[in-house]
Amino acid sequence: MSVLIDGLQYANWSEKIFRQMREGGVDAVHVTITYHENFRETVLQIEKWNRFFERFPDLIFQGFTAADVAKARETGRTAIFFGSQNPSMIEDDIGLVEVLHRLGLRFMQLTYNNQSLLATGCYEKDDTGLTRMGREVVEEMNRVGMVVDMSHSAERSTLEAIEFSSRPIAITHANPASWHRALRNKSETVLKALGESGGILGFSVYPHHLQGGSGCTLESFCSMIARTADVMGIDHIGIGTDLCQDQPDSIVEWMRVGRWTKKIDYGEGSASAPGFPPMPGWFHDNRDFGTVAGGLRAVGMSEAEVAQVMGGNWMRFFGESFGPATGG
Amino acid sequence: MSVLIDGLQYANWSEKIFRQMREGGVDAVHVTITYHENFRETVLQIEKWNRFFERFPDLIFQGFTAADVAKARETGRTAIFFGSQNPSMIEDDIGLVEVLHRLGLRFMQLTYNNQSLLATGCYEKDDTGLTRMGREVVEEMNRVGMVVDMSHSAERSTLEAIEFSSRPIAITHANPASWHRALRNKSETVLKALGESGGILGFSVYPHHLQGGSGCTLESFCSMIARTADVMGIDHIGIGTDLCQDQPDSIVEWMRVGRWTKKIDYGEGSASAPGFPPMPGWFHDNRDFGTVAGGLRAVGMSEAEVAQVMGGNWMRFFGESFGPATGG
Repeated sequence: MSVLIDGLQYANWSEKIFRQMREGGVDAVHVTITYHENFRETVLQIEKWNRFFERFPDLIFQGFTAADVAKARETGRTAIFFGSQNPSMIEDDIGLVEVLHRLGLRFMQLTYNNQSLLATGCYEKDDTGLTRMGREVVEEMNRVGMVVDMSHSAERSTLEAIEFSSRPIAITHANPASWHRALRNKSETVLKALGESGGILGFSVYPHHLQGGSGCTLESFCSMIARTADVMGIDHIGIGTDLCQDQPDSIVEWMRVGRWTKKIDYGEGSASAPGFPPMPGWFHDNRDFGTVAGGLRAVGMSEAEVAQVMGGNWMRFFGESFGPATGG
Repeated sequence: MSVLIDGLQYANWSEKIFRQMREGGVDAVHVTITYHENFRETVLQIEKWNRFFERFPDLIFQGFTAADVAKARETGRTAIFFGSQNPSMIEDDIGLVEVLHRLGLRFMQLTYNNQSLLATGCYEKDDTGLTRMGREVVEEMNRVGMVVDMSHSAERSTLEAIEFSSRPIAITHANPASWHRALRNKSETVLKALGESGGILGFSVYPHHLQGGSGCTLESFCSMIARTADVMGIDHIGIGTDLCQDQPDSIVEWMRVGRWTKKIDYGEGSASAPGFPPMPGWFHDNRDFGTVAGGLRAVGMSEAEVAQVMGGNWMRFFGESFGPATGG
């Protein structure tokens, strides 16, 4: 079986989920360990993962390089790569980029939904693009090998990150806006620029990003992937499920509200549907990647193309992205 | 003698300076206690001030309300009011506004020179105005009685803060750009909007904000104040010296660079003049406020007008600004 990599998950982690990863043959997952947490709180999340690695060494281990994905396959385990969906954890301190890279952080979104110190999120009314600090931090991420992730960023910021970054960037979890209009989904302009720059898009199965929401069909999802391959090139797409398995609704509130407001912000939800939406029938957990692969074959993709989408492209991207800029 | 209040100082504090405040008859000073420090580091600065208050109770004490300025006059001491020149110390956490207000923080700049989580600084290329979090935080500052200070903010952000804030705001230390063109000085549009909204401008004697820099004459400075009184109204102006007495040049580097870049940013300085500029001959320390008052008289201001500029307006503003929004 070819390599299977998920470009983003944020589950309420447990032995059950780690076992499902193994049942589903998942070789590597980029997991979100922090949103609005500051540096010290993020270190607490790393400590929590260290306990998982200590307790379940037969199921999971921490991934630092693409070679760890190969090691995961050889040893029948899943390699866990850390990432952040907001730069809160570097606080105002560019020096924390290198420190967090050493601790294993491999992806950092320059923004979640709001303006950050680095760039603008997709829920702001206006978008300045990369800030002064944003440009400095992207250079530093490029230097140490931390991937710029613009999944939640606004259009201009995303285009500027693609252009300014000296290394390819990722949109780990989003879909084309032409398929499903949503603040979080991406324009054709962004997708083309991302593909041309050597970047990569992970397709999300989070219902708010899907045409028809929770009722989205596998056929619709897979046809969209095939069309996006035509726009971006088959080498520049992968899966990034945004699976939030077993999370209580209090967590989606934390993701949206953090500590930036005393009110409730419903984000992609609404007052009548504030919680996590139900997943589509064909994707519930890590055992369902085979179903997606089957869906891709059904819309006419070749076996080689399916292998690229299901993990081959992420594998190449990991190999190019996680080490220092100068060859090392 | 009428009340004497300085709208901003950031000295390398010492018994010498506290004694000079007493010699100069300074009743109250808004002191900057933090720039890029996070919450915990800001608390360390408060601890440092608590030691000053403990060691020099005959010279200084912490001010919380306008009544403390009256108390300072009665007891022959200087009331010290805390402020921040950047919102770093509230981190990503709106709840820290109330906590810091309780600890005595009475002014907070929504930005220093760069983009913050709240608004845009005057050194950024683009200015989005108030961010989503910015609007929430301004509401919270209005509620608890913490003054919005836009001294280092960009034009649109400043205008939006004036309009969005339900209580008058301050520009504690800056001058009109029409007198001396500088990113840090303010347009006529801003000054008029500030005056009309009941806000207040503190005139800076920091050389980079002065026409002719360190060579600026007292007459030029005082004529500019008289003209600005015509633009903004005599009730809406005061002094905000931006006195950085006895600071080593490493401090101006910290102010400009913080931890947001690994390079050097010269801000208002330059590679050939990276340090603090020499002060104008007529203002060196807290004993020189009488010279400024004399200069105002010399350009034709009445005694009553001079009293307003030298502290009366700040006194009224303190009285309106530091308590909870609902009368309390």
